[in-house]
Amino acid sequence: MSRSIRLAVIPGDGIGQEVVAQGLKVLTAVLPQDVKLETKEYDLGARRWHATGETLPDAELESLKQHDAILLGAIGDPSVPSGVLERGLLLKLRFAFDHFVNLRPSKLFPNTTTPLAGRPDIDFVVVREGTEGPYTGNGGSLRTGTPAEVATEVSVNTAYGVERVVRDAFERANARPRKKLTLVHKNNVLVYAGHMWKNIFDKVGQEYPEVTTDYLHVDAATIFFVTQPERFDVIVTDNLFGDILTDLAAAVTGGIGLAASGNINPTGEFPSMFEPVHGSAPDIAGTGKADPTATILSVALLLRHLGYEAEAARIETAVATDLEARDGTARSTDEIGDALAARVAG
Amino acid sequence: MSRSIRLAVIPGDGIGQEVVAQGLKVLTAVLPQDVKLETKEYDLGARRWHATGETLPDAELESLKQHDAILLGAIGDPSVPSGVLERGLLLKLRFAFDHFVNLRPSKLFPNTTTPLAGRPDIDFVVVREGTEGPYTGNGGSLRTGTPAEVATEVSVNTAYGVERVVRDAFERANARPRKKLTLVHKNNVLVYAGHMWKNIFDKVGQEYPEVTTDYLHVDAATIFFVTQPERFDVIVTDNLFGDILTDLAAAVTGGIGLAASGNINPTGEFPSMFEPVHGSAPDIAGTGKADPTATILSVALLLRHLGYEAEAARIETAVATDLEARDGTARSTDEIGDALAARVAG
Ligand SMILES: CC(C)[C@H](C(=O)O)[C@@H](O)C(=O)O
Ligand SMILES: CC(C)[C@H](C(=O)O)[C@@H](O)C(=O)O
Repeated sequence: MSRSIRLAVIPGDGIGQEVVAQGLKVLTAVLPQDVKLETKEYDLGARRWHATGETLPDAELESLKQHDAILLGAIGDPSVPSGVLERGLLLKLRFAFDHFVNLRPSKLFPNTTTPLAGRPDIDFVVVREGTEGPYTGNGGSLRTGTPAEVATEVSVNTAYGVERVVRDAFERANARPRKKLTLVHKNNVLVYAGHMWKNIFDKVGQEYPEVTTDYLHVDAATIFFVTQPERFDVIVTDNLFGDILTDLAAAVTGGIGLAASGNINPTGEFPSMFEPVHGSAPDIAGTGKADPTATILSVALLLRHLGYEAEAARIETAVATDLEARDGTARSTDEIGDALAARVAG
Repeated sequence: MSRSIRLAVIPGDGIGQEVVAQGLKVLTAVLPQDVKLETKEYDLGARRWHATGETLPDAELESLKQHDAILLGAIGDPSVPSGVLERGLLLKLRFAFDHFVNLRPSKLFPNTTTPLAGRPDIDFVVVREGTEGPYTGNGGSLRTGTPAEVATEVSVNTAYGVERVVRDAFERANARPRKKLTLVHKNNVLVYAGHMWKNIFDKVGQEYPEVTTDYLHVDAATIFFVTQPERFDVIVTDNLFGDILTDLAAAVTGGIGLAASGNINPTGEFPSMFEPVHGSAPDIAGTGKADPTATILSVALLLRHLGYEAEAARIETAVATDLEARDGTARSTDEIGDALAARVAG
C-alpha cells in the first residue's frame, strides 16, 4: 500500500465544486497522518468549454494519467449542447482510462426515506460495463434535419469486454456473504449481444460454483427493483442498462443524494475515477442545499480501491451513524461535510 | 362505426389462454346486442413451434390481416430459446402490421397496492414507438462463441418513424386536460438518434402551442417514476426505453396485473393488436391465479380504438368499481372475469 496519494480533482460544474470540497475535507480527516495527500485540480467542464472550446485536451489527459485516482464532482450545464461535455469529457475519461467496471453500490442506510413502503433491507451492487455497448459513439446521421433523416446508434459488444466485466462481477459476488449474481440484459430482443452476454456469463460461472446465478430481462428487473429489491446481491449488466438501473436503484434507496460510483480500471494500468451518480444540478448550485454524501461515499470507494479498507469502512460507518442520528433539521452542504469529517476523525 | 367486429384471437402461452378467455367474456358482455362479434382463434406460440417449428407462417399473417383487431394473451416459454418467439412472432406482428404507436396507460386504480408510500394520483400514458429503434433486428455477431466475438445491435431511427409517433403523442396530450408531453431519450449519449428525436419533437411541438413540453433523460425519468409519478401526463419515447419504462410504470402503480397495452396502427391500414404488458408466467399457468384485469383493460383499449368509446369506458369504470369493492379475499382468474362481466352488463 502506497503511503502517498496523488489525487486528481475535477470539480466540474454546478454543485460539483461544493460537493467535491466536502469529499476532500472528509478524505483529509480520515487519512492517517503519515499518508501524504497531493491533490491537483483540473479546470474542466462547462466554464472551460465556454472560455476555450476545449473539453479534454490531450495534455490534460496525459497529466491526469500521472495520478493514483481521480475524484470528479459533476459535469454538465444547460448552456452547453447536450452531449458535448458528456462525450467529450466524462465518457472520454471513462474510455481513455479503460474504466470497464462501473461500480455502483445501493444500500438502504438507516433513517433514509425510501419511497417504497415497508420494504426490508436493500444492499446490492451494480457492476455496470463501462467501455462498450451503446456508449461507444458508433452510429451516425444521414440527411440530418431533413424528413428523410436516418439516425443510427450501434451497440458494440466484444467477448473481450464482456468477459472481463463478468469475471469481475463473479469475483465480487464470491466475496460477499450471499454470493448471488444476476445478469440483466434483454436477450429476447437484442439477440446478438444478449446471447453473447448470456453465454459468457454461463461459461465464466462454471469457475464459480459457489455463486448462485440468475438472469432477468431489463424490463422485468425494473419491476423487482421496486417490488423486491432485497432479492439482489450483485448485478452485472451492459453500459446503458446499468445507467438506467443505477438511477432507479438510487431512487428506491436513499435517493440520488447518497449514490456513489467508481469508474474502475481493475488492472491498475490507468487511474480509476470516483464520482457521485447525480448530476451538476445547476438549479441548486451555490445555495448550500447539495447533499455531499454521495461524493463522500465515492471517496470511500476510492480509498478501498487504493487499499485503504479501514478508512473506507470508517467513512461508510460515519455516514450510517450520521443518518441514524439525523433529527430532520435541514443541514447545509458544509454542515454535512463537517459532521462527517468530525465522525471519521473521531 | 361498424356494427360487427371481426376479432382475431391469439391466446398464446402460459396464462395467455386463461386471461384471454376472461377478456372475451367481458367483451361479449359489454357489446350491444346488435353488434356481431366474430372471433377466430390462432394457435401460435410455444406449442405450435415445438410441434411444427413455425412461429408465424405467411398464410396466418395474411389471415390475421383480414380482421378489425387482434387480441393477444402472452407469448413465450422457457422451453423455447430466448428470442425465437419474441422476434419470430410477437415483434413480427408489430412490424408487419406497422404498429408504430405502442400505447401503455398507467393509472393508479382505487384500492390497489402501489409500493410507493403515500403518493398521490398517478394517471399517465406512455406512447412507445413500436417499429424502430433497437428492435429492428439489425446487428449481428462475428466469430460467434469465440474469445474474439464481436456482437452489435443497431438502433435504427428515421425521421419518418419518429415524426409520426411524436405527432400521435402530441394529439393525445392535446386531448387530455393537463396537456403535457414529456420526451424521454438519452440524447447526451445517444447523440445521433437523441438529437433527431429532440429536433423533431421541438418542430412538431410548434403546431401544438397549448401543449406544455419537457425533456428527460431516461435515467432521470426512472427516478421521477418513483419519486414523483404524478408529474407525468403523456410520455413519448423510443421502443426500448418505452419497454423499460412501462414495466416500471406498472410496478409503481397497481402492478403488472393491471397494465394494458395497444399496438396501434393509427392509419387503419392494418389491424391493431391489444395485449396485457405481462408475460406468459408459466409458473402460475393453470393455477387460476392469473389476474385477467390487464387483458380486460386491453379489451377496453381495443373497443376505444374501434370507436366503441362508451363500452370502453364501461369496462374501465367496472374495473375501478370492482377494485374499490375488493375485500382482500383472493379471487381466481375466472371469478375476476365473472365479476367484471357482471358489472359491465349491469
Ligand atoms: C452524464 C451521463 C453521460 C452519464 C452516463 O450516462 O453514464 C450519467 O448518467 C451516469 O450515469 O454517470
Ligand atoms: C416480450 C418482449 C419482446 C416485449 C418487448 O420487449 O416489447 C415485452 O417485453 C413487451 O413489453 O411487450
